[in-house]
Amino acid sequence: MSGHRGGIDLGGTKIQAAIVDEGGSPVGKARRETPRKGGPADVAAAMAEALRAAAADAELEVADLEGVGVGSPGVVDAEAGTVTAAKNLPGWDGAYPLADALRGELGVPVTVGNDVQVAAEAELRLGAGRRHPSFLGVFWGTGVGGAIFLDGRPWLGRGAAGELGHVVVKHDGAVCPCGRRGCMEAYAGRVSMERMARERHEAGEPTVLFDLMRKKGRDRLTSGIWARALRQQDALAAELIDQAIEAIAVAVASAINLLDIGAVVLGGGMGVRFGKTHGERLRAAMVPHLFRDDSPPQLVLAELGDLGGAIGASLLVGKGGEASLGATAGARP
Amino acid sequence: MSGHRGGIDLGGTKIQAAIVDEGGSPVGKARRETPRKGGPADVAAAMAEALRAAAADAELEVADLEGVGVGSPGVVDAEAGTVTAAKNLPGWDGAYPLADALRGELGVPVTVGNDVQVAAEAELRLGAGRRHPSFLGVFWGTGVGGAIFLDGRPWLGRGAAGELGHVVVKHDGAVCPCGRRGCMEAYAGRVSMERMARERHEAGEPTVLFDLMRKKGRDRLTSGIWARALRQQDALAAELIDQAIEAIAVAVASAINLLDIGAVVLGGGMGVRFGKTHGERLRAAMVPHLFRDDSPPQLVLAELGDLGGAIGASLLVGKGGEASLGATAGARP
Repeated sequence: MSGHRGGIDLGGTKIQAAIVDEGGSPVGKARRETPRKGGPADVAAAMAEALRAAAADAELEVADLEGVGVGSPGVVDAEAGTVTAAKNLPGWDGAYPLADALRGELGVPVTVGNDVQVAAEAELRLGAGRRHPSFLGVFWGTGVGGAIFLDGRPWLGRGAAGELGHVVVKHDGAVCPCGRRGCMEAYAGRVSMERMARERHEAGEPTVLFDLMRKKGRDRLTSGIWARALRQQDALAAELIDQAIEAIAVAVASAINLLDIGAVVLGGGMGVRFGKTHGERLRAAMVPHLFRDDSPPQLVLAELGDLGGAIGASLLVGKGGEASLGATAGARP
Repeated sequence: MSGHRGGIDLGGTKIQAAIVDEGGSPVGKARRETPRKGGPADVAAAMAEALRAAAADAELEVADLEGVGVGSPGVVDAEAGTVTAAKNLPGWDGAYPLADALRGELGVPVTVGNDVQVAAEAELRLGAGRRHPSFLGVFWGTGVGGAIFLDGRPWLGRGAAGELGHVVVKHDGAVCPCGRRGCMEAYAGRVSMERMARERHEAGEPTVLFDLMRKKGRDRLTSGIWARALRQQDALAAELIDQAIEAIAVAVASAINLLDIGAVVLGGGMGVRFGKTHGERLRAAMVPHLFRDDSPPQLVLAELGDLGGAIGASLLVGKGGEASLGATAGARP
């Protein structure tokens, strides 16, 4: 046994695979686009392909791995290895035995956990959490996920804690992809931002966003496209990014007023990218809503960056991960 | 030693004192109005008077008590026994040695703690918390306080957790007494509600609220006056109570989305009164904002009712209270 493990972060846009060594350091990686058509079996095949490519990148055989962990959206039943209602994935309404399917493809043990929780746990154990035993994880991407760590341990509540994206920032506000009104994610999730950009563009507002999308051969507004539009001083893009940051700031401030923890760790595709350029803006937007504005929380970027989800998924392999995540991830939507 | 302890709940409107026996059951009580003029020394004198009256009600001498605990608003330094910046109390801007002053008046040891936290701790140990080890305490009164208990222990964060009243419910919304915008307390605190009622009444809207206030010889809209106005089908009172309940529902739902705990304990003067008549309304207003709307938290009334604050304060006397509250209450605003 080499002590190496595989991790797969299953996102709405991309599948990121990584191979990590015994200490949790990545030694190989590969990325694939998430299939837009077909069904769960097609997604599982693309995941297996990404993992094989990551193993090749690490100059290892998949059979040499101790196992593979998966961070998945949707409702994860860790014990059964199934994923249900993964809304951003094609044809994935019912329960699909993802762990079994991948085990069949890869021939090694597979454990499935919640995507946000595993990414946050990776930060706790290997990233920013080493200096901040209590922190609020903010994962800004397709939606906005959250995770709460108190004194070095995840707080999961009855299994679904951390839904920062569905903290209300504006009573009777915009409609969220979840169907409710005024959630933070209704303003800040990549999906919501794209919908607002599209509506306003179709109503006549100029923007380079969709030209850039077509030029890049994409069918959605990725974080890279938003960043490029900002660099081209696109007014609509700037306004929507600013609105997203305001919404995140309000929700995070509300969470800090409740929990009074000293650190906020910002990750996710959008978070890692715009945390670098807009961190000061986010901090400034938070302060007016903090009850203790004399001691705002430290705002730090997820140290594991883009690979955090895959590295976190790899932590599911072996005792530690299963004990702290596998047992509780079942009830998490 | 009789094992009896005294507790004083210092509120913006009233001072509630209680004597409890060894088991925490109240055996005597007395209430005084909080002085509206003068300064901290006048408030301390009224507190001592209330405590003496409660001892008389219990047919005990103050000297027989093991000690007296105080739940206070403002910034409490438990170790120094001081209270600073108690905004709703007369002339109380600087630090006042409340514990020393009361010790001088009463001749027994005095311990000071945060009002919301001690009321919540009373519910944890003697009330609703006995069946709900994890709960969110909501204390709806002059303002709206909160307290978080996770697995039977208070979560205090860096000392100021639980500021539910300052969870944002409407970005760029109404101005809160704290000076910020859109806080829940800006809609639901008794002080905010009175200000809105006054502004709208002065602008010409009819209401019986201020007639009732004068008739009762009060100088503010107490929870009893609000209740009486509702019984008289006062439209403005009904609208403002409903708005308050909506705001509380949104903030509580946000907190539950974050923490996913299974119980909400509603206390405080307004909370105990309107929880009985408007509990269903509150529950219904919460559900549309709950991420897991299939398993809403149980909403229960604070079992210790009006006396909860004083009983909780009495828990500060002796080891248990000092260990869990005294040590941490210092930093709590």
